[in-house]
Amino acid sequence: MARLKLKLQLYCGDEIAMGPGKADLLEAIACEGSISAAGRALGMSYRRAWLLVDTMNRCFAAPLVATQPGGGKNGGARLTAAGDAALAAYRALSDQVQDGVAGPDFAALEAAIRPQPLPAQA
Amino acid sequence: MARLKLKLQLYCGDEIAMGPGKADLLEAIACEGSISAAGRALGMSYRRAWLLVDTMNRCFAAPLVATQPGGGKNGGARLTAAGDAALAAYRALSDQVQDGVAGPDFAALEAAIRPQPLPAQA
Repeated sequence: MARLKLKLQLYCGDEIAMGPGKADLLEAIACEGSISAAGRALGMSYRRAWLLVDTMNRCFAAPLVATQPGGGKNGGARLTAAGDAALAAYRALSDQVQDGVAGPDFAALEAAIRPQPLPAQA
Repeated sequence: MARLKLKLQLYCGDEIAMGPGKADLLEAIACEGSISAAGRALGMSYRRAWLLVDTMNRCFAAPLVATQPGGGKNGGARLTAAGDAALAAYRALSDQVQDGVAGPDFAALEAAIRPQPLPAQA
Protein backbone atom coordinates (compact mmCIF):
# COMPACT_ATOMS: atom_id res chain seq x y z
CA MET A 1 0.00 0.00 0.00
CA ALA A 2 1.07 3.57 -0.53
CA ARG A 3 2.64 5.02 2.57
CA LEU A 4 1.80 8.59 3.40
CA LYS A 5 4.30 11.08 4.76
CA LEU A 6 2.99 14.35 6.10
CA LYS A 7 5.33 17.21 6.88
CA LEU A 8 3.86 20.02 8.90
CA GLN A 9 5.81 23.26 9.12
CA LEU A 10 4.83 26.42 10.99
CA TYR A 11 6.42 29.59 9.67
CA CYS A 12 7.31 32.75 11.52
CA GLY A 13 8.06 35.31 8.83
CA ASP A 14 10.47 33.51 6.50
CA GLU A 15 11.79 31.18 9.18
CA ILE A 16 10.41 27.79 10.17
CA ALA A 17 9.38 28.08 13.82
CA MET A 18 8.42 24.41 14.14
CA GLY A 19 8.60 21.33 11.96
CA PRO A 20 9.46 17.62 12.14
CA GLY A 21 13.22 18.16 12.61
CA LYS A 22 12.81 20.80 15.28
CA ALA A 23 10.25 18.70 17.16
CA ASP A 24 12.64 15.73 17.12
CA LEU A 25 15.42 17.99 18.41
CA LEU A 26 13.25 19.24 21.29
CA GLU A 27 12.46 15.66 22.21
CA ALA A 28 16.15 14.74 22.12
CA ILE A 29 17.10 17.74 24.27
CA ALA A 30 14.47 16.68 26.82
CA CYS A 31 15.99 13.18 26.86
CA GLU A 32 19.67 14.01 26.65
CA GLY A 33 19.86 17.18 28.73
CA SER A 34 22.12 19.11 26.36
CA ILE A 35 22.10 20.50 22.85
CA SER A 36 25.32 18.75 21.85
CA ALA A 37 24.16 15.32 23.10
CA ALA A 38 20.78 15.82 21.42
CA GLY A 39 22.52 16.73 18.15
CA ARG A 40 24.76 13.66 18.43
CA ALA A 41 21.73 11.43 19.07
CA LEU A 42 20.19 12.74 15.83
CA GLY A 43 23.43 12.63 13.80
CA MET A 44 23.51 16.42 13.64
CA SER A 45 26.47 18.74 14.26
CA TYR A 46 26.46 20.90 17.38
CA ARG A 47 26.35 23.98 15.19
CA ARG A 48 23.31 22.74 13.29
CA ALA A 49 21.48 21.78 16.49
CA TRP A 50 22.36 25.13 18.07
CA LEU A 51 21.06 27.03 15.02
CA LEU A 52 17.75 25.14 15.11
CA VAL A 53 17.35 25.93 18.82
CA ASP A 54 18.24 29.57 18.19
CA THR A 55 15.62 29.79 15.43
CA MET A 56 12.92 28.31 17.68
CA ASN A 57 13.84 30.64 20.54
CA ARG A 58 13.69 33.67 18.22
CA CYS A 59 10.37 32.60 16.64
CA PHE A 60 8.40 31.82 19.79
CA ALA A 61 7.24 34.49 22.21
CA ALA A 62 8.92 32.60 25.07
CA PRO A 63 12.11 30.54 24.54
CA LEU A 64 11.51 26.79 24.11
CA VAL A 65 14.97 25.73 25.29
CA ALA A 66 16.87 27.11 28.28
CA THR A 67 20.64 26.69 28.34
CA GLN A 68 22.96 26.92 31.33
CA PRO A 69 24.41 30.45 31.35
CA GLY A 70 28.03 30.32 30.19
CA GLY A 71 27.74 26.60 29.53
CA GLY A 72 28.62 26.79 25.82
CA LYS A 73 29.02 23.54 23.93
CA ASN A 74 29.33 21.43 27.09
CA GLY A 75 26.58 23.12 29.07
CA GLY A 76 23.23 21.60 29.88
CA ALA A 77 19.96 22.48 28.19
CA ARG A 78 16.35 21.69 28.99
CA LEU A 79 12.90 22.44 27.64
CA THR A 80 11.05 25.32 29.25
CA ALA A 81 7.34 25.05 30.04
CA ALA A 82 6.77 26.81 26.69
CA GLY A 83 8.99 24.17 25.04
CA ASP A 84 7.03 21.30 26.58
CA ALA A 85 3.77 22.93 25.48
CA ALA A 86 4.93 23.64 21.92
CA LEU A 87 6.23 20.10 21.47
CA ALA A 88 3.03 18.57 22.83
CA ALA A 89 0.84 20.79 20.64
CA TYR A 90 2.91 20.02 17.54
CA ARG A 91 2.76 16.25 18.15
CA ALA A 92 -0.98 16.37 18.80
CA LEU A 93 -1.54 18.49 15.69
CA SER A 94 0.52 16.07 13.58
CA ASP A 95 -1.58 13.14 14.82
CA GLN A 96 -4.79 15.06 14.16
CA VAL A 97 -3.70 15.90 10.61
CA GLN A 98 -2.61 12.31 10.00
CA ASP A 99 -6.02 11.08 11.14
CA GLY A 100 -7.68 13.60 8.81
CA VAL A 101 -6.25 11.91 5.73
CA ALA A 102 -8.76 9.09 5.55
CA GLY A 103 -11.44 9.38 2.90
CA PRO A 104 -12.21 8.69 -0.76
CA ASP A 105 -9.37 10.80 -2.19
CA PHE A 106 -6.73 9.00 -0.18
CA ALA A 107 -8.39 5.69 -1.01
CA ALA A 108 -8.33 6.54 -4.73
CA LEU A 109 -4.64 7.41 -4.63
CA GLU A 110 -3.80 4.31 -2.60
CA ALA A 111 -5.66 2.15 -5.08
CA ALA A 112 -3.88 3.74 -8.06
CA ILE A 113 -0.33 3.40 -6.68
CA ARG A 114 1.55 0.13 -7.16
CA PRO A 115 2.89 -1.77 -4.14
CA GLN A 116 6.39 -1.30 -5.60
CA PRO A 117 7.55 0.90 -8.50
CA LEU A 118 8.43 -0.65 -11.81
CA PRO A 119 12.21 -0.69 -12.28
CA ALA A 120 13.79 2.37 -13.89
CA GLN A 121 14.98 1.74 -17.41
CA ALA A 122 18.67 2.05 -18.10
CA MET B 1 0.17 34.89 12.41
CA ALA B 2 2.05 31.67 11.94
CA ARG B 3 1.69 30.37 8.43
CA LEU B 4 1.28 26.66 8.03
CA LYS B 5 2.91 24.64 5.30
CA LEU B 6 1.77 21.08 4.80
CA LYS B 7 3.68 18.72 2.59
CA LEU B 8 1.90 15.54 1.66
CA GLN B 9 3.92 12.75 0.07
CA LEU B 10 2.69 9.36 -1.07
CA TYR B 11 5.35 6.69 -1.24
CA CYS B 12 5.56 3.67 -3.49
CA GLY B 13 8.29 1.50 -1.99
CA ASP B 14 11.19 3.91 -1.45
CA GLU B 15 10.10 6.30 -4.20
CA ILE B 16 7.74 9.25 -3.91
CA ALA B 17 4.81 8.52 -6.19
CA MET B 18 3.11 11.87 -5.59
CA GLY B 19 3.95 15.06 -3.71
CA PRO B 20 3.73 18.83 -4.10
CA GLY B 21 6.44 19.09 -6.78
CA LYS B 22 5.05 16.24 -8.86
CA ALA B 23 1.51 17.63 -8.63
CA ASP B 24 2.77 21.03 -9.80
CA LEU B 25 4.56 19.33 -12.68
CA LEU B 26 1.42 17.45 -13.75
CA GLU B 27 -0.48 20.73 -13.72
CA ALA B 28 2.21 22.41 -15.81
CA ILE B 29 2.25 19.54 -18.32
CA ALA B 30 -1.52 19.86 -18.68
CA CYS B 31 -1.09 23.61 -19.36
CA GLU B 32 2.04 23.56 -21.51
CA GLY B 33 1.56 20.38 -23.50
CA SER B 34 5.11 19.13 -23.14
CA ILE B 35 7.52 17.99 -20.44
CA SER B 36 10.23 20.44 -21.47
CA ALA B 37 7.89 23.47 -21.50
CA ALA B 38 6.42 22.37 -18.16
CA GLY B 39 9.92 22.06 -16.68
CA ARG B 40 10.83 25.51 -18.01
CA ALA B 41 7.67 27.00 -16.53
CA LEU B 42 8.72 25.60 -13.14
CA GLY B 43 12.40 26.54 -13.47
CA MET B 44 13.36 22.87 -13.70
CA SER B 45 15.73 21.17 -16.14
CA TYR B 46 14.28 18.89 -18.79
CA ARG B 47 16.17 16.00 -17.23
CA ARG B 48 14.72 16.69 -13.78
CA ALA B 49 11.17 17.02 -15.14
CA TRP B 50 11.57 13.85 -17.17
CA LEU B 51 12.82 11.92 -14.14
CA LEU B 52 9.83 13.06 -12.05
CA VAL B 53 7.43 11.96 -14.81
CA ASP B 54 9.24 8.64 -15.12
CA THR B 55 8.96 8.05 -11.37
CA MET B 56 5.21 8.79 -11.42
CA ASN B 57 4.68 6.53 -14.41
CA ARG B 58 6.57 3.69 -12.72
CA CYS B 59 4.77 4.14 -9.37
CA PHE B 60 1.19 4.27 -10.62
CA ALA B 61 -0.63 1.27 -12.03
CA ALA B 62 -1.47 3.28 -15.18
CA PRO B 63 0.89 5.99 -16.52
CA LEU B 64 -0.09 9.55 -15.54
CA VAL B 65 1.64 11.21 -18.48
CA ALA B 66 1.58 10.10 -22.10
CA THR B 67 4.34 11.28 -24.39
CA GLN B 68 4.37 11.35 -28.17
CA PRO B 69 6.20 8.23 -29.35
CA GLY B 70 9.64 9.20 -30.60
CA GLY B 71 9.04 12.81 -29.60
CA GLY B 72 11.99 13.05 -27.21
CA LYS B 73 12.78 16.44 -25.72
CA ASN B 74 10.67 18.37 -28.24
CA GLY B 75 7.73 15.99 -28.28
CA GLY B 76 4.35 16.72 -26.78
CA ALA B 77 3.03 15.27 -23.54
CA ARG B 78 -0.38 15.23 -21.91
CA LEU B 79 -2.06 13.85 -18.83
CA THR B 80 -3.86 10.56 -19.21
CA ALA B 81 -7.24 9.98 -17.55
CA ALA B 82 -5.28 8.36 -14.70
CA GLY B 83 -3.13 11.51 -14.52
CA ASP B 84 -6.15 13.79 -14.33
CA ALA B 85 -7.65 11.59 -11.61
CA ALA B 86 -4.45 11.37 -9.55
CA LEU B 87 -3.89 15.13 -9.71
CA ALA B 88 -7.50 15.86 -8.73
CA ALA B 89 -7.40 13.38 -5.83
CA TYR B 90 -4.08 14.78 -4.58
CA ARG B 91 -5.33 18.37 -4.68
CA ALA B 92 -8.58 17.43 -2.95
CA LEU B 93 -6.68 15.44 -0.30
CA SER B 94 -4.33 18.38 0.30
CA ASP B 95 -7.29 20.71 0.81
CA GLN B 96 -8.96 18.22 3.12
CA VAL B 97 -5.79 17.87 5.21
CA GLN B 98 -5.32 21.64 5.31
CA ASP B 99 -8.89 22.04 6.56
CA GLY B 100 -8.24 19.40 9.22
CA VAL B 101 -5.61 21.57 10.90
CA ALA B 102 -8.02 23.83 12.76
CA GLY B 103 -8.41 23.19 16.47
CA PRO B 104 -6.92 23.97 19.88
CA ASP B 105 -3.42 22.62 19.14
CA PHE B 106 -2.99 24.77 16.05
CA ALA B 107 -4.46 27.73 17.93
CA ALA B 108 -1.99 27.19 20.79
CA LEU B 109 0.97 27.10 18.39
CA GLU B 110 -0.26 30.12 16.48
CA ALA B 111 -0.64 32.06 19.73
CA ALA B 112 2.86 31.11 20.89
CA ILE B 113 4.67 32.07 17.67
CA ARG B 114 5.73 35.68 17.10
CA PRO B 115 4.52 37.57 14.01
CA GLN B 116 8.18 37.92 13.03
CA PRO B 117 11.29 36.24 14.46
CA LEU B 118 13.66 38.20 16.67
CA PRO B 119 16.83 39.05 14.73
CA ALA B 120 19.66 36.51 14.83
CA GLN B 121 22.58 37.66 16.93
CA ALA B 122 25.91 38.18 15.22
